Amino acid sequence: MRDPIEEEVLQNIRPTEEERHEVFEMGQKLIEAVREIAGVPAMMTGSVARGTWVRGDKDIDIFMLFPPTLSREELQEKGLAAAYGVVAKFNGSSEEKYAEHPYLNAVIEGFDVDLVPCYHVESTAEMKCAVDRTPFHTRYLLDRIDGLQDDVLLMKQFSKGGGVYGSDHMTGGFSGYLCELLVLAYGGFNALLQAAAKFRFGEVIDIEGFYPDKKTIRKLFSEPLIVIDPTDKTRNVAAALTPTRFSEFMELARDYCARPDSCYFIPDSPTSISKEEFAETLEMRGTTTLALSFKTPAYVPDTVVPQLRKTMESIKNQLTAEDFHVHRAEVAMGADHCLILFELLVADLPTITLRNGPPVWVHDNADKFVDKYLRENPFAGPWIEEDRYYTEVERKYRHASDLLADKQMILSGSIGKHVRISMEEEYTILKNEDIWSPEFTFFLSAYFAKSSHAVRKLRVLEHQ
Amino acid sequence: MRDPIEEEVLQNIRPTEEERHEVFEMGQKLIEAVREIAGVPAMMTGSVARGTWVRGDKDIDIFMLFPPTLSREELQEKGLAAAYGVVAKFNGSSEEKYAEHPYLNAVIEGFDVDLVPCYHVESTAEMKCAVDRTPFHTRYLLDRIDGLQDDVLLMKQFSKGGGVYGSDHMTGGFSGYLCELLVLAYGGFNALLQAAAKFRFGEVIDIEGFYPDKKTIRKLFSEPLIVIDPTDKTRNVAAALTPTRFSEFMELARDYCARPDSCYFIPDSPTSISKEEFAETLEMRGTTTLALSFKTPAYVPDTVVPQLRKTMESIKNQLTAEDFHVHRAEVAMGADHCLILFELLVADLPTITLRNGPPVWVHDNADKFVDKYLRENPFAGPWIEEDRYYTEVERKYRHASDLLADKQMILSGSIGKHVRISMEEEYTILKNEDIWSPEFTFFLSAYFAKSSHAVRKLRVLEHQ
Repeated sequence: MRDPIEEEVLQNIRPTEEERHEVFEMGQKLIEAVREIAGVPAMMTGSVARGTWVRGDKDIDIFMLFPPTLSREELQEKGLAAAYGVVAKFNGSSEEKYAEHPYLNAVIEGFDVDLVPCYHVESTAEMKCAVDRTPFHTRYLLDRIDGLQDDVLLMKQFSKGGGVYGSDHMTGGFSGYLCELLVLAYGGFNALLQAAAKFRFGEVIDIEGFYPDKKTIRKLFSEPLIVIDPTDKTRNVAAALTPTRFSEFMELARDYCARPDSCYFIPDSPTSISKEEFAETLEMRGTTTLALSFKTPAYVPDTVVPQLRKTMESIKNQLTAEDFHVHRAEVAMGADHCLILFELLVADLPTITLRNGPPVWVHDNADKFVDKYLRENPFAGPWIEEDRYYTEVERKYRHASDLLADKQMILSGSIGKHVRISMEEEYTILKNEDIWSPEFTFFLSAYFAKSSHAVRKLRVLEHQ
Repeated sequence: MRDPIEEEVLQNIRPTEEERHEVFEMGQKLIEAVREIAGVPAMMTGSVARGTWVRGDKDIDIFMLFPPTLSREELQEKGLAAAYGVVAKFNGSSEEKYAEHPYLNAVIEGFDVDLVPCYHVESTAEMKCAVDRTPFHTRYLLDRIDGLQDDVLLMKQFSKGGGVYGSDHMTGGFSGYLCELLVLAYGGFNALLQAAAKFRFGEVIDIEGFYPDKKTIRKLFSEPLIVIDPTDKTRNVAAALTPTRFSEFMELARDYCARPDSCYFIPDSPTSISKEEFAETLEMRGTTTLALSFKTPAYVPDTVVPQLRKTMESIKNQLTAEDFHVHRAEVAMGADHCLILFELLVADLPTITLRNGPPVWVHDNADKFVDKYLRENPFAGPWIEEDRYYTEVERKYRHASDLLADKQMILSGSIGKHVRISMEEEYTILKNEDIWSPEFTFFLSAYFAKSSHAVRKLRVLEHQ
């Protein structure tokens, strides 16, 4: 017997019979159209093919299976031509997108349809590009997941509720395929969560038993969760899951098992913060917050956000190297602007700083060091401590904002390509309440908020 | 031919014939008096015995050699009685002092005389206490150092000039015995300095060839300079030499060899700083300087200074742990007061700080952490990062001076015995120019000064 809480969730997320019928019918029509227009077979993939989609998420993925004898150019050419033909046949609208090669994202009879060309290969070992793997996933799951569709829906909705669903770079959470494999591996949603409550880093799941033991697998993969792809033993399906999202999932699972509640299936509603509240919060914290603001590059979040994070790390290291202690740092990608935010314990420092010199037995360097710093600066030093010279010198940046404004210095760091282009054009430094803008009210509110899984845990603790 | 610079130095520091004669005569009289009064043999030890004392430093050490059949109590009793007898015989004045056991420091006919009881053993292997070793040093050097006395004097004066002479804890430099062994090992002052200019950490000198090779010795001793005691192969004569003093000596040697000058034999004259200059210097540096001040314990510097340093390290660690970045720290032992000084880059911090929590899979601790920090504080968190919980909390000490004033916290650290007693009674916190007092004008001046060996190096560099 399914828990009443879960049954109620399912009633809200399970696709209706009508929806199932419509989706299946549309899929069949598209597959036939591909055969008719391009003369190649096609298949529905993804959650709609497996009946494991959460109500409303009914995007139809159609993979068009071209012979592997085609070159990449031919595949792209024929694939796109076929896709355009299909869209035209149904009087749909479309937009070209790009994964490993171009595909068509179309709206056809109210459905969101991806028409993706790939190679029709016999096994994953013969794959010619990454998208070739997708049909294998569908073929693998199609029979096996039967009877577990509800469990998959619960797992997906539970992950959405906890903010750990989605294998995009922004989230770094659980992909739909990963959810399905986990449910399959444990035989159901509840069994999976009970296991997950006791997970640790280095968890290994090898459904097909490709490897003799877990030790062998842990030598090959280093991620905290290792789920061997049953269609390709060289791949960890959970490779994109970040350690943080995995830990959050473990805690959510533990808390849910201790005290099941429908709240775990409902994502947080984002809250916003007004400029006044923002200023008050900063005042209470006592820190100095600085942000770099620049135009958002015209690329998808999955491209831009990792670049923002890389840039943030680079600048954070520069700040730390100059003695500005970063309390926290965060990035935001708005529609118009990006923010890279640094909250500092200290934003202003005294004139003086310490400089390490060479070991005394590197004679030339020691002489140069003494020569330079004995004459050129008004502070103490050089002196010897243990085996090295040290000296006091004048600090390069007395204010963190001076460092951030040093464009040459900032851009000398490790910065993502598109972010660099935008920053090279222009970036501005914002301080404290000036960071607030209507574009970032949700982001800035979330920055100060308690984390949602912790708030949920408190519910459990309060009832113990 | 001796370098004219060195010859001139020698003329100023070599004991005169008259001085030699007086010292020798006085020594003989004291040895005879010991035999007469206590019925045991005695010997002169130290530099006066070996003719290697720098003019003026004519302290006479008389070791009274008692049979090893005596108990420690008997040795102390008979030893002190004999010493008092000797002093009385010459109508001298005396004061009891304490090394491993009590001895008498006396003024006899204008000489500073130490009368030390020890056991008359056949070899250092049979030693019953550390002072028993001293006579062996004298016996070992007496013949061997003949002809090298001038070289020893130069080495001693060179070490004094560079501030690296003396094996007391305050200096951590070269003892007289170490100077003599080094000169002996290299066959002269110039050869020693030429070797020292190329020294590195892990230098090994085994005059008697006790060990098969340097590798064996380096396994047994870890100090940067290892000079095997020719009278006791288990002892490194340079054990008390600090890495810093050793490095300074290497640099002084290198600079002297490059450009010999009499300045290397002249210690720096201490400079003082006025309250106004002190305030101006602090202003220019921009740092915040805080000091703990308390009554000087009634013990010798060799006891108190290491305790001050230990206390300084302990408090420095406490400051660092609370995010107060210590730029430099120093101790001073005045006649009346001790200072432990901390120069801080930042003395005031914002309300907020980060606290690390447990890994998520330590379930009980994770629950307690969330329970506590979700309710009890107004800041963000707890949240998960990688495998751990973190949270923001209110900082315990917003001002470094609050931490220093927290007597219980400060005294919970690792603090030397006598310093602790004085601090328990009372200590005060001084800030910036209030740290200045007439007692510390030399110390505070030295704190800001260029190091003397670096200033000397510049002379060399300017002539290149």
